[in-house]
Amino acid sequence: MKKFKVKFYPDNKICEVEQGTTILASAISCGVYINSSCGGEGVCGRCKVILLKGNVISQPSGRITLEERAKNYYLACQTTVQSDLEVQIPPESRIDLEKLSKEELDLRLKGLYTKSEELSFSPSAKREKLFQHSPLATKIYLELPPPTLEDKISDLERLYRAIRKIQSVQIMQTGLANIRRLGGLLRSSEWKVTVTLGKRGGTTEIVLIEPGDTSQYNFGLAFDIGTTTISGQLINLRTKEILGTKIEHNMQAAFGPDVITRIIYAQEPDGLEKLHHAVIDVMNEIIQDLTQENGIDLNNVTCVLCAGNTTMIHLLLRVDPTYIRRQPYVPTANFVPTIRAAEAGIKINPRGLLSCVPGVSSYLGGDLTAGVLSCGIDAEKELCLLIDIGTNGEIVLGNKDFLIGCAASAGPAFEGSGVAYGMRAAKGAIQKVNIEPDDYTVKFSTILDARPRGICGSGYIDLIAEMLDKKIIDKSGKIQETKNKRLRKGEFGWEFVVAFKEETDIDRDIVITEIDIDNLKRAKAAIYAGASILVEHMNFNFWDIKKIFIAGGFGNYLDIDNAIKIGLLPDIERRKITFVGNSSLAGARSILLSYEAMEKAEEIARKITYFELSVDNKYMDEYMAALFFPHTDLNRFPSMKR
Amino acid sequence: MKKFKVKFYPDNKICEVEQGTTILASAISCGVYINSSCGGEGVCGRCKVILLKGNVISQPSGRITLEERAKNYYLACQTTVQSDLEVQIPPESRIDLEKLSKEELDLRLKGLYTKSEELSFSPSAKREKLFQHSPLATKIYLELPPPTLEDKISDLERLYRAIRKIQSVQIMQTGLANIRRLGGLLRSSEWKVTVTLGKRGGTTEIVLIEPGDTSQYNFGLAFDIGTTTISGQLINLRTKEILGTKIEHNMQAAFGPDVITRIIYAQEPDGLEKLHHAVIDVMNEIIQDLTQENGIDLNNVTCVLCAGNTTMIHLLLRVDPTYIRRQPYVPTANFVPTIRAAEAGIKINPRGLLSCVPGVSSYLGGDLTAGVLSCGIDAEKELCLLIDIGTNGEIVLGNKDFLIGCAASAGPAFEGSGVAYGMRAAKGAIQKVNIEPDDYTVKFSTILDARPRGICGSGYIDLIAEMLDKKIIDKSGKIQETKNKRLRKGEFGWEFVVAFKEETDIDRDIVITEIDIDNLKRAKAAIYAGASILVEHMNFNFWDIKKIFIAGGFGNYLDIDNAIKIGLLPDIERRKITFVGNSSLAGARSILLSYEAMEKAEEIARKITYFELSVDNKYMDEYMAALFFPHTDLNRFPSMKR
Repeated sequence: MKKFKVKFYPDNKICEVEQGTTILASAISCGVYINSSCGGEGVCGRCKVILLKGNVISQPSGRITLEERAKNYYLACQTTVQSDLEVQIPPESRIDLEKLSKEELDLRLKGLYTKSEELSFSPSAKREKLFQHSPLATKIYLELPPPTLEDKISDLERLYRAIRKIQSVQIMQTGLANIRRLGGLLRSSEWKVTVTLGKRGGTTEIVLIEPGDTSQYNFGLAFDIGTTTISGQLINLRTKEILGTKIEHNMQAAFGPDVITRIIYAQEPDGLEKLHHAVIDVMNEIIQDLTQENGIDLNNVTCVLCAGNTTMIHLLLRVDPTYIRRQPYVPTANFVPTIRAAEAGIKINPRGLLSCVPGVSSYLGGDLTAGVLSCGIDAEKELCLLIDIGTNGEIVLGNKDFLIGCAASAGPAFEGSGVAYGMRAAKGAIQKVNIEPDDYTVKFSTILDARPRGICGSGYIDLIAEMLDKKIIDKSGKIQETKNKRLRKGEFGWEFVVAFKEETDIDRDIVITEIDIDNLKRAKAAIYAGASILVEHMNFNFWDIKKIFIAGGFGNYLDIDNAIKIGLLPDIERRKITFVGNSSLAGARSILLSYEAMEKAEEIARKITYFELSVDNKYMDEYMAALFFPHTDLNRFPSMKR
Repeated sequence: MKKFKVKFYPDNKICEVEQGTTILASAISCGVYINSSCGGEGVCGRCKVILLKGNVISQPSGRITLEERAKNYYLACQTTVQSDLEVQIPPESRIDLEKLSKEELDLRLKGLYTKSEELSFSPSAKREKLFQHSPLATKIYLELPPPTLEDKISDLERLYRAIRKIQSVQIMQTGLANIRRLGGLLRSSEWKVTVTLGKRGGTTEIVLIEPGDTSQYNFGLAFDIGTTTISGQLINLRTKEILGTKIEHNMQAAFGPDVITRIIYAQEPDGLEKLHHAVIDVMNEIIQDLTQENGIDLNNVTCVLCAGNTTMIHLLLRVDPTYIRRQPYVPTANFVPTIRAAEAGIKINPRGLLSCVPGVSSYLGGDLTAGVLSCGIDAEKELCLLIDIGTNGEIVLGNKDFLIGCAASAGPAFEGSGVAYGMRAAKGAIQKVNIEPDDYTVKFSTILDARPRGICGSGYIDLIAEMLDKKIIDKSGKIQETKNKRLRKGEFGWEFVVAFKEETDIDRDIVITEIDIDNLKRAKAAIYAGASILVEHMNFNFWDIKKIFIAGGFGNYLDIDNAIKIGLLPDIERRKITFVGNSSLAGARSILLSYEAMEKAEEIARKITYFELSVDNKYMDEYMAALFFPHTDLNRFPSMKR
């Protein structure tokens, strides 16, 4: 088989591949990440590249416009290498895997409670304080009495006895590696050692034994493994202090934008391996960065606690996720045992532990369990609703007496996928929009005030609300044809220009198309209908709810009024609605710091009844009724009616 | 550094070593095993070799006679390589590491209860029956209900639920490797699987998951890791059937004959590693042989249970034994956690378990715990005594109310070390002796009726009893000078010829010297005094004892009368004394087959009070008084008085 070189711009990366390899696969092989929403099926049209040089064979695709074809655009997944190539990746097809800048980071961290003072006001902080401080891994300094002829129990029993004087430990475990070092270590340290005790499913393990008093050097990380972004927080396990937080893109995005496409990709040769490494690499990078910034030795990082959806946790542990998407949608495990982090490839102390927040089902993961814990819903007397708008929409209704949850396949539109100019809440994303009523002039603000590159979730919410308000679209989302220069018929039907080419950073107009509006409408309808079905199923209505928590990666901005206006959120008193940011990460942190919180999380995961929307007869009706802005039944949105 | 080749005869093995390496080290490096009792200190004089060719530098040694010097004898440990060499290892210096023949094996197995019928009469068999059948690893066949939309708990929880329907399991553990395979395995096997459940310190681990019903293929091995010999027994864990037994030399003997010399050797560079591999290699060979003979796949061997003295268990696990021989004689662990056998290098199913019988102290190991369990002493109403005569003399006195034990440093004389022509109970060993009263003609029988190569423990006991009886030696062991041709003065003082050169297989007379008699006297005195002190300490005397169990590797023959005659055993009714053979192996088997027995063993190990003879004032007096045949105080031996 002939081999050819493919060079990618602007990355300047070169790979060598066999003739017939797709450009998408070539790019992945040398670490160039191209957007791809359909797992290489040629359907989503997001992996457009520009061929600068060389010969290819390409399947025809309706996703490439005539204009684009003239400019040598191709779909990377439908185009195979037939000679040495040079390929340009246009900005809209790039997955921006560059590190977030300091400013972006600060921006994103709002709602993540970086400082202790801020912490004390959040719902998660209130909850966290209720749990006993007993981290996943604890360091205890011990001064053992040396053996004498009268007291000559073995070294290991001596250690156990000393630990049990301080803590009540039922079942104690120690690995051979620690036993092998024990005799010499105890004596060379003059019987003064620090043991790290880890919780492992009902037992206590001596994870580490170190000479001298190292009890003040004990650090751990809480992670939220999102489909789109991975957030990690470094914690001083002794003082509970948050030492830093990082957010990075989940590099798995290169293999598919959502869990379904990734599960499909996992079945490719080495697919599971690649997905596993993609998430682990990001986690290791976050760990590296945070520990270096804080001058912490990796050996003093003794544990990692992860919350993530069920597929993410499977991929993290390199467990085949295939059966998650096959009827009847059963994961391999919802409760994963605590393992050594090194077994999953995570680089902390080689004997350090990795634990995952238990999930409920294939589509209600540990991230939601952590969210419920963090918002304290399981302890509330009043009726609460948690809506986590991520790549999926996960919803839990309940209080201390019951918990019921569902997953609405909303799709990633609010995260910027599946919409023409969608992007994540990163630099250059249009996040806030106003439209002048007279000439439809668009006033927008972008993240970090950069030249616009696309539109993020909160931008789309504002945009639709404004377009509705200004009657640019009707209640069904159809664009009202007028002579305004911003309204025009494009290749995919009617579109509205949000920013003209001259204003943007991407050398083209940023528009919202009728197709985009339709996608967003379906996403919001799925979420609203899911919440509605849950509420109805339990014989309540939205006005019975006392607290709604909105979680998700909207950055620092979400206009709740607009979210209600488009019918994403139910029309209840605004003061009852709280935007809680990344509740999964907050919950993971609580669990990292308290085994009591882990037990509570297990209780929550067992308690949540999973409600399968796809087999509910009423869901489709409810969803169809929600396919209007805000809703077919305006009685549900009294404040809109006025 | 120059390198030279050393060739060893009769092995015909060649090694290349650096100039200045000792011949002993050279031999070990190419797998030639030479006797060595002092760990290479030049003291024991047992590593004599004959230099055939080449130059050496040798330290002068009183251990080489003038005659030997003329024949080019050297101490291998005191002689360094200075050119290419050819070296002959004389029979008396060889450690016979050849495999035991079938006949030898059959011989040795008497007392090991190979057949079920024989089993039912032994004390260990009676005990074994009392324990619930619950092996260290159990296989359970499960037919799981496939998941449906109504019953969609995860695969792992489904498995747990099915197991818990059959067994009550508090804490269940599963490793990542099994979780990774689980989803595919359950489906490809159509939800019919066999799980292997292992006991791991208070928790239950899913060790294996196999497709289909493999519950009838579950095997384990019980091992007695002796300082001198290693015995292994292959057991069908489901039927309890003993499928075979093997006894092999502990190859560690090449590094020293007893635990002390091996502990010293462990401090050499790579010493611990070599000792570890020596024991593991023998165990793996036994496992290989037994499984092959029975046509059993190694993957169906799921667990191994070992009893051994504390040093042997440390070396087995590659745990530094240094502190066992340093005051106050504390081991790293008496209770070792169950580990994966592969962690110690034992080749069974890669996920199979290795468990060790808990020990009491540095010098009272798990072999004694197993012995007490097997003899059922801990359940007896009546006062019992267990004397295990191995390389050390280990003694336990007690019943269901109390247990007290001690270790008498008897030395390995009864195992054939430290005596001029001593050997283990193997082919050609003089095991039974009669001396004619008139001309001192020696009638002896050897193991397998081969030409004699040396004298084993039971032979020495008979020999001394007969020499006493025929007044060849007096009560202090001094040879009575007469003109008989068998009595003569040799290089090391007076000696008695047991077999003349012409009768033997080793081209020299086999003699017993006054030094040998002294060594044997000190060994028997140590054991008797130990037992005596224990009995006295508890305010009993020997006549209060209702059962004495004698354990040890005496083969199939031990003349109890003669053992009393020389003062090794107390003078009580003969019917109260039972020779139980390898009680350590029998106990290990019980524990392998029953977790209840393991819990009992843990109870026994905790219950036995260790009595330190070396710090007891009376012990030295008692020992001195026992340095006569049978004893200074003949009132203690009334049947001898008559």
